[in-house]
Amino acid sequence: MSTLRTLATSTSSRLPSLSRLTEKATACPVMGPALAFRSSQIAHSTRNYASVAPNHHQDTFSIPHQGVCPHAKAGQEAASKAEALAQLVQSNRAVKPIKPSYDYEAFYDAELDKKHKDKSYRYFNNINRLAAKFPVAHTSNFKDEVDVWCSNDYLGMSKNPVVLDTMHRTLNKYGAGAGGTRNIAGNGATHLALEEELASLHRKTGALVFSSCYVANDATLSTLGSKLPGCVIFSDNMNHASMIQGIRNSRAPKVIFKHNDMKDLEAKLKQYPKETPKIIAFESVYSMCGSIGPIAEICDLAEEYGAITFLDEVHAVGMYGPRGAGVAEHLDFEAHLRAGQSGEPIKGTVMDRVDIITGTLGKAYGIVGGYIAGSSNLVDMVRSYAPGFIFTTSLPPAIAAGAQASIAYQKRYMGDRRLQHLNTRELKRQLEAIDIPVVPGPSHIVPVLVGDAALAKAASDSLLTDHGIYVQSINYPTVAVGEERLRITPTPGHTTEQLTHLLGAVDEVFTRLGIRRKSDWAQLGGRAGVGIADESVQPMWTDEQLGLQDNTAPVTLSKGAKSVVDVKASKQAQDLIDKLLGNSVRSNAHLGQISTGLFNPTAVHVPKAVVTAA
Amino acid sequence: MSTLRTLATSTSSRLPSLSRLTEKATACPVMGPALAFRSSQIAHSTRNYASVAPNHHQDTFSIPHQGVCPHAKAGQEAASKAEALAQLVQSNRAVKPIKPSYDYEAFYDAELDKKHKDKSYRYFNNINRLAAKFPVAHTSNFKDEVDVWCSNDYLGMSKNPVVLDTMHRTLNKYGAGAGGTRNIAGNGATHLALEEELASLHRKTGALVFSSCYVANDATLSTLGSKLPGCVIFSDNMNHASMIQGIRNSRAPKVIFKHNDMKDLEAKLKQYPKETPKIIAFESVYSMCGSIGPIAEICDLAEEYGAITFLDEVHAVGMYGPRGAGVAEHLDFEAHLRAGQSGEPIKGTVMDRVDIITGTLGKAYGIVGGYIAGSSNLVDMVRSYAPGFIFTTSLPPAIAAGAQASIAYQKRYMGDRRLQHLNTRELKRQLEAIDIPVVPGPSHIVPVLVGDAALAKAASDSLLTDHGIYVQSINYPTVAVGEERLRITPTPGHTTEQLTHLLGAVDEVFTRLGIRRKSDWAQLGGRAGVGIADESVQPMWTDEQLGLQDNTAPVTLSKGAKSVVDVKASKQAQDLIDKLLGNSVRSNAHLGQISTGLFNPTAVHVPKAVVTAA
Repeated sequence: MSTLRTLATSTSSRLPSLSRLTEKATACPVMGPALAFRSSQIAHSTRNYASVAPNHHQDTFSIPHQGVCPHAKAGQEAASKAEALAQLVQSNRAVKPIKPSYDYEAFYDAELDKKHKDKSYRYFNNINRLAAKFPVAHTSNFKDEVDVWCSNDYLGMSKNPVVLDTMHRTLNKYGAGAGGTRNIAGNGATHLALEEELASLHRKTGALVFSSCYVANDATLSTLGSKLPGCVIFSDNMNHASMIQGIRNSRAPKVIFKHNDMKDLEAKLKQYPKETPKIIAFESVYSMCGSIGPIAEICDLAEEYGAITFLDEVHAVGMYGPRGAGVAEHLDFEAHLRAGQSGEPIKGTVMDRVDIITGTLGKAYGIVGGYIAGSSNLVDMVRSYAPGFIFTTSLPPAIAAGAQASIAYQKRYMGDRRLQHLNTRELKRQLEAIDIPVVPGPSHIVPVLVGDAALAKAASDSLLTDHGIYVQSINYPTVAVGEERLRITPTPGHTTEQLTHLLGAVDEVFTRLGIRRKSDWAQLGGRAGVGIADESVQPMWTDEQLGLQDNTAPVTLSKGAKSVVDVKASKQAQDLIDKLLGNSVRSNAHLGQISTGLFNPTAVHVPKAVVTAA
Repeated sequence: MSTLRTLATSTSSRLPSLSRLTEKATACPVMGPALAFRSSQIAHSTRNYASVAPNHHQDTFSIPHQGVCPHAKAGQEAASKAEALAQLVQSNRAVKPIKPSYDYEAFYDAELDKKHKDKSYRYFNNINRLAAKFPVAHTSNFKDEVDVWCSNDYLGMSKNPVVLDTMHRTLNKYGAGAGGTRNIAGNGATHLALEEELASLHRKTGALVFSSCYVANDATLSTLGSKLPGCVIFSDNMNHASMIQGIRNSRAPKVIFKHNDMKDLEAKLKQYPKETPKIIAFESVYSMCGSIGPIAEICDLAEEYGAITFLDEVHAVGMYGPRGAGVAEHLDFEAHLRAGQSGEPIKGTVMDRVDIITGTLGKAYGIVGGYIAGSSNLVDMVRSYAPGFIFTTSLPPAIAAGAQASIAYQKRYMGDRRLQHLNTRELKRQLEAIDIPVVPGPSHIVPVLVGDAALAKAASDSLLTDHGIYVQSINYPTVAVGEERLRITPTPGHTTEQLTHLLGAVDEVFTRLGIRRKSDWAQLGGRAGVGIADESVQPMWTDEQLGLQDNTAPVTLSKGAKSVVDVKASKQAQDLIDKLLGNSVRSNAHLGQISTGLFNPTAVHVPKAVVTAA
């Protein structure tokens, strides 16, 4: 409906709102001093840290030293609406009595106000990770570089030369996009090969790729939950939003069990007849707290009570197991290591017992997209019935081929994830030493407890502004109120100097902002697992698996050292890609990097001529 | 649950199923002779046209000259299960009485059988569109090239040198993936600039990018429909699956109105009080029939009955309007042309009156991803509340920047869409001349009616096998039973020779398979708009808009001619990307192509050194 209409029909309710909006435009209370400071540094046209949805009017309505606050726009809109209203009052149309229609804009405004009031309104930081320098990124200003300590590009695969070379070659050969759905002109060799790679990774007979793992989880759970007759879905209470959405959309009855609580799960499973179809949906690594699901125990219960298991390994693929297949693979480390690159199932292993594994190509594998792996019939059923798979443009060939290269490389090289976990250990050890509270867990996630929304945001802002370190604060609704945190994720590319800098910065910010230390939480009886008597947790990766016992463990980088690129894994991954792309030529620049086993951040990708088959 | 468990608990029901599966493995009735013929040509390891979900066992269980039929795998599984069962019967465990659990695999199998029986089971063709030769693609065999006539890469932007150059540069500068959600480490200048470009394209104050337009439609409709108090959603009965899903997931009451029927819509709107929040959800170009929604009339009704309008322009963006903003822009062609590249709303235009426009970056723009555009408050609310936006990895920077380059180029150059529509006109004219039935419509979609599922598939298979032409058949549930069709989509890159080849092939296949001509349908009283007395429809693009009156119309390519690349539009788009990427160097190879105004399919992209800011 038109603006005039809105105004004509909601004059009385709108006017107070207009004045409120105009007020906000001149002083945006949500933008802290850190943001204001950064905003003042901006030299070019795009947005600052406090950026939200686009505003192409910003040049005509910018507030000095306050950057692009959404309420600046609101004020502008209020002013222009007031003008339109004045015109309208003078026109004939305004004289006619018009029945009121719903005031949509006022509703949007009120919903946003709620977010501002409960401090859950999100400002997006403008972070541009540099391929040649990651974990370094520039902010809205090209010259303003910061260390990123919260990316989900856990292994730095986004800058891996084999991945980049593959993507360049595929772009040259097959162009920018897929050009259709999988059923209509959008299905090619890159998609099929990626799915074969994924099935083999998880030693399943089928796999299917989606736009994202959000879509994979949503589409698969909603399809299974709605189609399996009388299905009941059992869901861990810490499950990711995508699973919650899929379960909700399935309209199947949902039974929530306490996080990782097998007694609670069993008590709830018992209440249903064995022959009732059931899905137990859970995760391996829980992203925000770093806990790990008891996969084998859940498989035992599933077997006993006639359920199938749906395991989200989104934060685990690439990160655990000898081939990077995730925690389910890690639990039978030796068996999977011995089996090498075969895609055959290994009977009796935890990974084999899990019915459906979902994962992402956008975190440890460094690109974008999601998938499921399972029996070929299950996968074919989801392929045939899930609207979220069927009716959408497929991933670009360059994304699919790049993801395959990334998986193939990580299947054959443990160095990146070993170094990631070694750096995680070291970070946790040093945070412990200075009494910084870390939520205990066996995974690679390092959640630093702050325990207050405003403090967590202030700490994140201060790290960015005062120390050039980017760690996003995690607030409600992503974590419970009172458990707000900074979620730190080390990578193999972080140097000892960057680690030292981080520790000093966190220490300084905790002191300056008066944030509780671990000993403070202990005195208060503990929170979120921090400061309780027994918080010892064994890390998932053992000393032996990390290579600490046979001296094969990789060494943390020091300033100036280049990231290691494994020569053998690179060549094997490239051979695979060569078959996929035919005789399109590899990049000499990358071959150079790969043959030396070092990623040279100053070297450049220069793909050679595309030679297509005659 | 484990395989053994399944077997132990469902022996009696499973055994007949096993024999049935084994039977299928030796003769897959669904695979026609065309597929079998193509299958026999395959020289390398990946899949053939009849490919389905991955099967890494295929080497051990391939059926000569029948390729990879999914039932081959089923047979293999049946055999291995039978073996496991035999072992189990001998073991102690099998003796214990075990309560039966649900037989999940049998259920998947039964669901797939349904698809086979009603002929809606989908075999994915393996089509690899070549950047240097599109509309030519190779099949599963590199040497087997075909003309693609059904891609949604309507303008060939997937091979546009500005787009490819931008993607190569962005890959070099920012790496393969975004590395996080928009809120955590995955928001950068490329995302913000793309959203600004999109808001400006639709002359709205806000825009928001999603993984796909499926996700954009689902997330936006489900968020709005569930949050607006008492909201009722009015949905055109031909709406896309993504909107149907979003409306369903919102759980708001849904009122379906007859396709493009304003009387029906009004009668239904009238039944609700004016103050009740309402959304009218519809499309501009309906993909499968090529009809176009009456946007202005729907806006009139929305205004009168207090609704907001939700317009899906997925098949229209890039294709209509002086700047490619879609049909809503096209309806005020002159006003938008005069306003140039300003992003300011033009009051009273149809595009301004529409509240929410959704579009894709994966069809005419040639890449992947989706978006919404609307008022900044609306967009900010969806940004703040929609789980499908919040909890997912953002698009890779190279995708975002490439999409921006594509939009910026198409904003400034009408030649591609003009030529696309001229080629559409010519194709429709020539099909008419040989009595081939085309569902009449004003858009660029050319639906050729076949009217039978098996015939449509046979026609598609024969075009591919016998003529080297790829046009996917469209069957139920995508179209109604009895209205099965071949959906042809010309591009500006199709030559007169390719057109002649297509016409001859369609003519031959129609004759050989005995498919009804237009005159046959007329005798039968017509179907799907074909063969009825008055089927004259004015095309959306007028002679004047196509440049036919002032002799500025582009000319259909002939064999050997290169696609035109507009020099001015390229330079303007590149200037924009230069600002975005800083001083990362452009490709000389592409600059050459652009300065000559010709896309040279043998030229190669060779990006120069990445120079990052100091």
